[in-house]
Amino acid sequence: MTDTSGGRGGAGSEGRSATAGPPGPSARLAELDEEQQGVLRQVGREWGEVTAPPETWRRALPVDPDLGSFPPPAQLRPARFGRLVPLTPLGTGTPGQQLDEEEPEEAPAGRMGRAGAWTRRLLLGTPLKSSALVSERMRKLVALPVLSADALSSVAYGPEAMLAVLVLAGTAGLAYSFPISAAIVFLMLAVGLSYRQTIRAYPHGGGSYIVAGDNLGPVAGLVAAAGLMTDYVLTVAVSIASGVAAITSAIPSLAPDTVPIGVGVIVLLLAGNLRGIRQAGALFAAPTYLFIIAMFALITAGLADSAGRDFHPQPTPAVTVTEGATLFLVMRAFSSGATAMTGIEAISNAVPAFKPVEWRQARTTLTWMVGLLITMFAGIIVVIHLAGVVPSSKETILSQLAHLSFGSGWMYVFVQATTAAVLLLAANTAYNDFPRVLSLLARDDYAPRTFMRLGDRLAYSNGIIVLSLAAALVYLAFDGQTGALIPLYAVGVFLAFTLSQAGMVVHWWRLRDRHWRKSMCFNAVGGLLSAVVFLTAGISKFTEGAWVAIVAVGLFLLVTLRIRRHYATVREALRLRPHTVELPAPGGVCGPAEPLVERYGRAPEPEGDREGEELPEEIRHLSIVALASIDLASMRALAYAASLRQPVLALHISLTPEEAERVVAYWQLWGDHLPLEIVVSPYRATVAPLVHYIEALHRAHPDLTLTVILPEIVTRHRRHQLLHSRTATRLRRALRPLPKIVVTTVPFHVP
Amino acid sequence: MTDTSGGRGGAGSEGRSATAGPPGPSARLAELDEEQQGVLRQVGREWGEVTAPPETWRRALPVDPDLGSFPPPAQLRPARFGRLVPLTPLGTGTPGQQLDEEEPEEAPAGRMGRAGAWTRRLLLGTPLKSSALVSERMRKLVALPVLSADALSSVAYGPEAMLAVLVLAGTAGLAYSFPISAAIVFLMLAVGLSYRQTIRAYPHGGGSYIVAGDNLGPVAGLVAAAGLMTDYVLTVAVSIASGVAAITSAIPSLAPDTVPIGVGVIVLLLAGNLRGIRQAGALFAAPTYLFIIAMFALITAGLADSAGRDFHPQPTPAVTVTEGATLFLVMRAFSSGATAMTGIEAISNAVPAFKPVEWRQARTTLTWMVGLLITMFAGIIVVIHLAGVVPSSKETILSQLAHLSFGSGWMYVFVQATTAAVLLLAANTAYNDFPRVLSLLARDDYAPRTFMRLGDRLAYSNGIIVLSLAAALVYLAFDGQTGALIPLYAVGVFLAFTLSQAGMVVHWWRLRDRHWRKSMCFNAVGGLLSAVVFLTAGISKFTEGAWVAIVAVGLFLLVTLRIRRHYATVREALRLRPHTVELPAPGGVCGPAEPLVERYGRAPEPEGDREGEELPEEIRHLSIVALASIDLASMRALAYAASLRQPVLALHISLTPEEAERVVAYWQLWGDHLPLEIVVSPYRATVAPLVHYIEALHRAHPDLTLTVILPEIVTRHRRHQLLHSRTATRLRRALRPLPKIVVTTVPFHVP
Repeated sequence: MTDTSGGRGGAGSEGRSATAGPPGPSARLAELDEEQQGVLRQVGREWGEVTAPPETWRRALPVDPDLGSFPPPAQLRPARFGRLVPLTPLGTGTPGQQLDEEEPEEAPAGRMGRAGAWTRRLLLGTPLKSSALVSERMRKLVALPVLSADALSSVAYGPEAMLAVLVLAGTAGLAYSFPISAAIVFLMLAVGLSYRQTIRAYPHGGGSYIVAGDNLGPVAGLVAAAGLMTDYVLTVAVSIASGVAAITSAIPSLAPDTVPIGVGVIVLLLAGNLRGIRQAGALFAAPTYLFIIAMFALITAGLADSAGRDFHPQPTPAVTVTEGATLFLVMRAFSSGATAMTGIEAISNAVPAFKPVEWRQARTTLTWMVGLLITMFAGIIVVIHLAGVVPSSKETILSQLAHLSFGSGWMYVFVQATTAAVLLLAANTAYNDFPRVLSLLARDDYAPRTFMRLGDRLAYSNGIIVLSLAAALVYLAFDGQTGALIPLYAVGVFLAFTLSQAGMVVHWWRLRDRHWRKSMCFNAVGGLLSAVVFLTAGISKFTEGAWVAIVAVGLFLLVTLRIRRHYATVREALRLRPHTVELPAPGGVCGPAEPLVERYGRAPEPEGDREGEELPEEIRHLSIVALASIDLASMRALAYAASLRQPVLALHISLTPEEAERVVAYWQLWGDHLPLEIVVSPYRATVAPLVHYIEALHRAHPDLTLTVILPEIVTRHRRHQLLHSRTATRLRRALRPLPKIVVTTVPFHVP
Repeated sequence: MTDTSGGRGGAGSEGRSATAGPPGPSARLAELDEEQQGVLRQVGREWGEVTAPPETWRRALPVDPDLGSFPPPAQLRPARFGRLVPLTPLGTGTPGQQLDEEEPEEAPAGRMGRAGAWTRRLLLGTPLKSSALVSERMRKLVALPVLSADALSSVAYGPEAMLAVLVLAGTAGLAYSFPISAAIVFLMLAVGLSYRQTIRAYPHGGGSYIVAGDNLGPVAGLVAAAGLMTDYVLTVAVSIASGVAAITSAIPSLAPDTVPIGVGVIVLLLAGNLRGIRQAGALFAAPTYLFIIAMFALITAGLADSAGRDFHPQPTPAVTVTEGATLFLVMRAFSSGATAMTGIEAISNAVPAFKPVEWRQARTTLTWMVGLLITMFAGIIVVIHLAGVVPSSKETILSQLAHLSFGSGWMYVFVQATTAAVLLLAANTAYNDFPRVLSLLARDDYAPRTFMRLGDRLAYSNGIIVLSLAAALVYLAFDGQTGALIPLYAVGVFLAFTLSQAGMVVHWWRLRDRHWRKSMCFNAVGGLLSAVVFLTAGISKFTEGAWVAIVAVGLFLLVTLRIRRHYATVREALRLRPHTVELPAPGGVCGPAEPLVERYGRAPEPEGDREGEELPEEIRHLSIVALASIDLASMRALAYAASLRQPVLALHISLTPEEAERVVAYWQLWGDHLPLEIVVSPYRATVAPLVHYIEALHRAHPDLTLTVILPEIVTRHRRHQLLHSRTATRLRRALRPLPKIVVTTVPFHVP
């Protein structure tokens, strides 16, 4: 059963909400357009001439009333075929059979299967119905911590990243920290205002992919998606690296284990998200609010300390000057510090998750968040300046500040613990967003369809796994060092910001509603500033790692566009087409054992390779039974072939002429009921001559649909399968590329 | 096409020659016994009532005269399906099609396939016909080096292994070297005489597996085979370890690379043997004779040196005494030194490879070989004693002797080079013998049948690969140290010797021909002594590694016996059986679109799970087309199903009720020509509900053979296949264990 649907079904993919309304399971079956429906009707009329009317079989359905939905409502427990298949006791007239269902003879992989189902259930919980996919609506006080963990937690690494660059130029460099911070604060304001416009325009959720795609065209949308997705991968890596640094600052003995701890956290996030821990309000609210409290405590204590010194900054320790305070250095420091803004877009993606009136509540929450972000960012910069601390590879700056203000007591532990917790939550937000964007891409044919699939727990399992792998890879490649990851980070996120804001500018220009000029203006400023940061980061940090992000975006574009092209080709190939039928002479298909010579006498049709047959009358059969020996499995395959009442040909590959003679002798003993062809293969190959023969047959008679019937020994234990030849599998693989060849395996079960 | 033949075909597996006559390709098709033939005739008569007489199709065959043998004689070149399939230009009336054969559209995996075939051809050479399998007959002077490389090369490590144990007890221990060597020489004589009897009794080749199996029963044969096969693996590992030691003794700078060099040699042997370098006389003759010359030169020079000192032995260097000269130590030294005898059985295995009169020539050659072996072994022991050298971990004893006698000049290099070369050849003899024994086991159903398969170059490729893997594993596990491997070595080979000689005793006792008493006596002595060595080695070296060999023999027995049991079960299950037929009412099978209700109305037959149908009339069909969407691939699958003129049911798994409604609407638009069932799967599973439905259908109607028809998208490039669902593959796997379910895939090729 192929899943070849166009994936564009469901109403309104345009206005579809990005967060609340995933491109759900209903998008599986392609809708047919007018022309397709016409073709379907026409083909149906042609079928009508040759098939029995529905009245003849109508009363036989349903075969079993319990089978209409899966799993049957009565019972829901794991059973032999993997995780979800209950064995229904079939009540229809055969009560005795109910006892069979636990019989070990019929449950071959039973123990393993049950253990697997049990483990799965334990780790992931019971499956959830698709209808359980309802959005939780959030009040502002809940939405704030849920949606701002990513943005607010950025202050844990943003200021430090900026100072780590400036300190290379010593005191002269550190003098630039105030002007750069001021620029970043201005940027935060501008981008925040910008997103306020987006919220108004896209009340159903305006992720960068949607906004840029809608207004600037699909390629811009893809570029934005590429930026977003590299950003999400880096959010996980950077947040975890920074969170682990918060822990190792407090407990230095853990420092050598930075990498295993981080990987362990990624595994936990993977497992948790496969289980479907999304937006669990209380879980998020506490650490984020506690983090805010901790930051304000830290800033207050820092200010109080220096108030005692009349706000005279402490002298910074002597640092080795390795670079001059050049413009280039300032640019790098600016783009590093701008990582404190990552996550600012989260609220605009999630407007439908608010309680009504959604966009109003979202705007207010965004304002609060930007206010908190600016206050915390600026406060920390000031306190750092006053305390005279500089970045160190052993201890984070926040930890140094906390040590200065609180010593090593419980307040210090509180600061470090809430920082680590909020960074973990920030990483988790990427686990919500990355798979969602990937599923949007899959819906639009830019990614493999498997990313559209919702798992048992209504999470996009495949996207979650891909994100975990990518983040773990990046984390490992950079040894879990925040500083090394920062240069990659700013590029993708500001690329997405830029395209999103540029899309908004176009949006307002097209719409021209009441406040369009003001909105366009805000968006234009936000977009321009984002573009400046993007270019600054891309240029100044190119050799330090930004090239990785840029290459990733390029590759992403290349791959997604090719995937889309492939899907388009396939969709075109699969479209129902108007179809002219040439029926063969009536009665030509189903007469029992029609002489082969009539088939072979027909001139080959030139278009025989088309695989375009849509009517039963058009298909002319020849079944080929591949035999290795004369035994029960072969006889059953022959009987199966003959019972189809189509011409049958038996084929045997003999390794020696003697074997060939023996086969012929047995065949005659049996009565020579079916034509037998023998190919002598002195080079001992078996699959190759079979394929060769079948291919030659196809070329000589391209009008025939060849059904290759293979008897196959199936053993009860999988290890025993090794003792039998894999000819059937190998042959199936070799015949796959050939047109008009259908492969049928007739199983023979042995104990 | 299953390869389920009994494997017991071909005449005279009893008297079959082990070396010259492999259980060749003709053993593939099982012969049918009287009863089976009777059943076949009876089944044929029943078929006769329902099928058309052969006259109706006879003149249509052969379909193509060129296809009778593979590859067609006219051409033999690699082509698209792997390595051996030429695309015959089909001359039968369609000359225009000849041009198609190179068309890229039709050769999807073409470039890769061609490159693979080319590489294969380059490495392995062109394929050989089965009929090329003729034995090369050898004169004695050729046979001696070919068959004795293994035995004679043992003197390179045997004496050293013995002394390495004795030296642990210092001078007191080394004093035992003469008595122990005398015992080993006696053992060589006795075993040599013993094998002279075997040669006379088994002129067609008497490997331990055959001799022990024939005379002591199959289990004894298996134990002997287990001993032999562990021995062959160790021959490769020990010979290579010792050969590499000869090289690193000469070039000490290579010593750290012992492991990679050894693995490289194994890879070379693997490639060479897959190519089929067997018994190439000249290749073997030169190094072996040169080695003999080198050893005699070494012994002569050593004796000449000490003749100058009136044969006073040089004092041995001071060694650390770690053990007392106990009986246990002596036993260990004896069993280590006895490894010098390994390979002594080679000539008796290969009697048919001699020129006539085979057994006489073989006996003479054996006598020469044992004479040479004893002379070289004793000579080296004497020279070692006179020169006063002791084993060292840095340099082999032979290298030390050569240094003493020849300095570091070309004679030294000659000794080391010939030693290394002959050890390499010794390893290579295991590559002839291991796969051959494995193929004998496979012939007798003790090993997977795939080991009976002769590769393109008439080598048992799979056995060669298994030997290489096992030897590489052992070599790596023991770091390529000869000394560490020796304790494992003696056990297997003397177990095989013992059982072989015991078998000969029984043979003579049964036969009682002219010289039976003398022969039995010789064999009894040989067997007893071998048993003593086996027990000595097994007990004294148990903890040092002999346990590994013993466990390997035990596991081998367990696995082979279970494999044989499985094959016996399968053979029984596959036997044609007398069969009572209950034909359904005539015309009940093939009427077009017979109403489903008639099928479903039938009471389930209790024996419906038997899969025992052998007559077309007995098979009642229901085809189930699994649909994911309404497109060309689905329509083609539906048309295929309907064209079989059997009842058809379409099945769709809908993830939502809306999707279900849409499918029904399209179905009605099409005209409702076939029954459609829809299963709603709110938990989003697709394979599970399909399997569940089909299983339920089978339980409700066990009399029906269900053909599950799956449309499958086939892409031209394999990477594109990732973009499509794997439902067909997953469903095929899930349906495998179910009885009476036939799976058919209808391919739809997309660009």
